[in-house]
Amino acid sequence: MFLCDIGNTSYHFLKDGVDFKKKVNHFNPAEITQKVYYICVNKKIKTLLKNLENWVDISTFINTQNYYATMGIDRIVASLSIKDGVVIDAGSAITVDVIKNNIHQGGFIYPGINAMNTTYKNISQALSYPFNFKLDLSKLPKKVQNAISYGYLKTLYNEVVSCDIDIILTGGDAKNFLNIFKDAKIDNHLIFKGMKKLLKGIDNG
Amino acid sequence: MFLCDIGNTSYHFLKDGVDFKKKVNHFNPAEITQKVYYICVNKKIKTLLKNLENWVDISTFINTQNYYATMGIDRIVASLSIKDGVVIDAGSAITVDVIKNNIHQGGFIYPGINAMNTTYKNISQALSYPFNFKLDLSKLPKKVQNAISYGYLKTLYNEVVSCDIDIILTGGDAKNFLNIFKDAKIDNHLIFKGMKKLLKGIDNG
Repeated sequence: MFLCDIGNTSYHFLKDGVDFKKKVNHFNPAEITQKVYYICVNKKIKTLLKNLENWVDISTFINTQNYYATMGIDRIVASLSIKDGVVIDAGSAITVDVIKNNIHQGGFIYPGINAMNTTYKNISQALSYPFNFKLDLSKLPKKVQNAISYGYLKTLYNEVVSCDIDIILTGGDAKNFLNIFKDAKIDNHLIFKGMKKLLKGIDNG
Repeated sequence: MFLCDIGNTSYHFLKDGVDFKKKVNHFNPAEITQKVYYICVNKKIKTLLKNLENWVDISTFINTQNYYATMGIDRIVASLSIKDGVVIDAGSAITVDVIKNNIHQGGFIYPGINAMNTTYKNISQALSYPFNFKLDLSKLPKKVQNAISYGYLKTLYNEVVSCDIDIILTGGDAKNFLNIFKDAKIDNHLIFKGMKKLLKGIDNG
């Protein structure tokens, strides 16, 4: 089975258990002649793929009534692969979704590392520091770098930990957040697992 | 007594119990011939005032060993006026400082409303909403506007409330945050109170 998760910047493929990426701007999807099951949050690519018969958009198989109307297809599919847990997808935005007994309970959106770094820098050059992911979040900070790191990370930490369920990290910045959520598991195939589950449901349905 | 708290955009005066503001770009401090006690975070204005004998910088009277080296003078002076409490100064940045038994315990820095709005908008136009300050923070959201509002506000709320002491709001956006911190008190003269306390200490010292 050939799967593809298409974001704003890249195609993320999974074929025979191996994943690889292609840049959106440097890859022609018509090169692939096999059947590809995909999801896509990139509007431009979505239009392009409609003309290719072997590319199958599986988002149409989802019962969207279980999710809110404007929720990204990647968040929905990632949620499908979890029975109980909180999924933190750390990319340009950080989406946090809570799933209990296979049902999406809701979620929230927090700025990603780069976005938040830019925010502090734009407020004042005096706040232009990289975040300290090794910070001890049990103590109130007394230095500027730690004061912005605490402002960014401790606030997120409190909210996620208050869910009191398993934490699953995914996305490009997952490793950084493992410093904060030490008991979390990283799973960069979460979306592919959700896609497989969805396709299995269609086979059986 | 004539007091002045100078920020990046304005002079905030207190004279005979009445406060008023003057824009940094449209006001010439040499117009005032009376003695003015001031604090200033604006580097350009600070240089200008050094040449005016009647303008007295009271930051030099502070025992800075009790605070961290790069902490803004406005945060230090606001902290001086509190015995026990958490001070939230909601401006272009939101500074949160915890004071216990007159001693500054530390604090953190979080983006202000405008800064965070821009952050979400720059990540994606799909996240370009004003924050919903009336949001019920006890429930996980299911709509995008609420998902970003929760991301911005609930995370801050958790951290502040965990201090379990009185909350004092100050700064230009204090009123918005009263929707979130319903038991907080607004005090827009907090810095002036700190300045008076500092001056009283000098008189007695």
